[in-house]
Amino acid sequence: MKKLAVFIFPGIQTLDLFGPIEMLAGFDDRIALTMVAETLAPLPTRHGQRICPDKTIDDGSDYDLLLIPGGDSAIDAGHRPEVIQWLQETGNRAELVMTVCTGSILLAMTGLLDGHRATTNKMDFRDTVGLGPNVEWVEQARWVHDGKFFTSSGVSAGMDMSLAAAAHLFGQEAADWMAEGCEYDWHRDPSWDPFAVSSGLVSPKV
Amino acid sequence: MKKLAVFIFPGIQTLDLFGPIEMLAGFDDRIALTMVAETLAPLPTRHGQRICPDKTIDDGSDYDLLLIPGGDSAIDAGHRPEVIQWLQETGNRAELVMTVCTGSILLAMTGLLDGHRATTNKMDFRDTVGLGPNVEWVEQARWVHDGKFFTSSGVSAGMDMSLAAAAHLFGQEAADWMAEGCEYDWHRDPSWDPFAVSSGLVSPKV
Repeated sequence: MKKLAVFIFPGIQTLDLFGPIEMLAGFDDRIALTMVAETLAPLPTRHGQRICPDKTIDDGSDYDLLLIPGGDSAIDAGHRPEVIQWLQETGNRAELVMTVCTGSILLAMTGLLDGHRATTNKMDFRDTVGLGPNVEWVEQARWVHDGKFFTSSGVSAGMDMSLAAAAHLFGQEAADWMAEGCEYDWHRDPSWDPFAVSSGLVSPKV
Repeated sequence: MKKLAVFIFPGIQTLDLFGPIEMLAGFDDRIALTMVAETLAPLPTRHGQRICPDKTIDDGSDYDLLLIPGGDSAIDAGHRPEVIQWLQETGNRAELVMTVCTGSILLAMTGLLDGHRATTNKMDFRDTVGLGPNVEWVEQARWVHDGKFFTSSGVSAGMDMSLAAAAHLFGQEAADWMAEGCEYDWHRDPSWDPFAVSSGLVSPKV
């Protein structure tokens, strides 16, 4: 049984959070999911829905897997030293660290991504990657797998990244079974990323 | 400003709920979203995350739009008379009613779908559509739009249906803008449904 910590914070983007939860927590005989926040008080998502943390960052870092969803406020969270310290401890200990959207920037702010290839969302790419100056940022990728890090592009990309992480952990057949159960047409190619072009981040191939 | 009620219940499938919320609540200058439950107590999703309702069914039915996500426990909810009564009142009053997955079955249990075309998820299709014997169930469809009803197939199909409903309400450009912001490759064709075949519900075309 893998213990998965999902770091949540006020303003978290709902699909960044619950897309991966759907794809990972469905393996309920193999993954035990805990939502971890700075306090136990219910916190509002980006769209105002209030969700209840299960544990706090003061309850320790004993997890096998770490997921960091995004949201504009992820960067604010990265300016709080106790958040960075918990992410460093938990990320160092975990066998696998996953991020979605600006969650990649939050992870980069810990220094753990230094020297690694990673991606983040395409619309805010140029405005945010400077917060991780020692990361090899990949402009065009649905997700990037480098070492123990799976980092993904914006919002819905977290679902594809999570299925790729599930395939890495449990095999391709298990990931395909999950996608089928969710009737989800998943993008299995990590280099598939039309949004890098449509956002103007890279030029279309001619 | 459209007032959107999202009916939530214990055991609700997370992506059924938060996929559509991401696609609809992002129109925060046009949609005001309220999560409505039987009580105000935090309730667990299918995967255990606790979410807080904003209002209860006793607070009235004054909404323009209604969204009913699914989950195996949606059918249990349909056996509670006060739930059926609130869904009937709210659904009758709303200009548009949206369902995801077994949320379609829950809506069918109210009688409001009688004589209408509708769809639901593909894996449990045959086991559940008998609860709506007067509905014209469509086996192969990502979603079905009939009158004021948008009903969708399983779990992730709720995102496509929500974007179609947004296009209906606010125009295609607005829906495409939302999908782009979420880096979501949306299925614009309501007849696209490979899961009707892969689940064995319909035969592949030869």
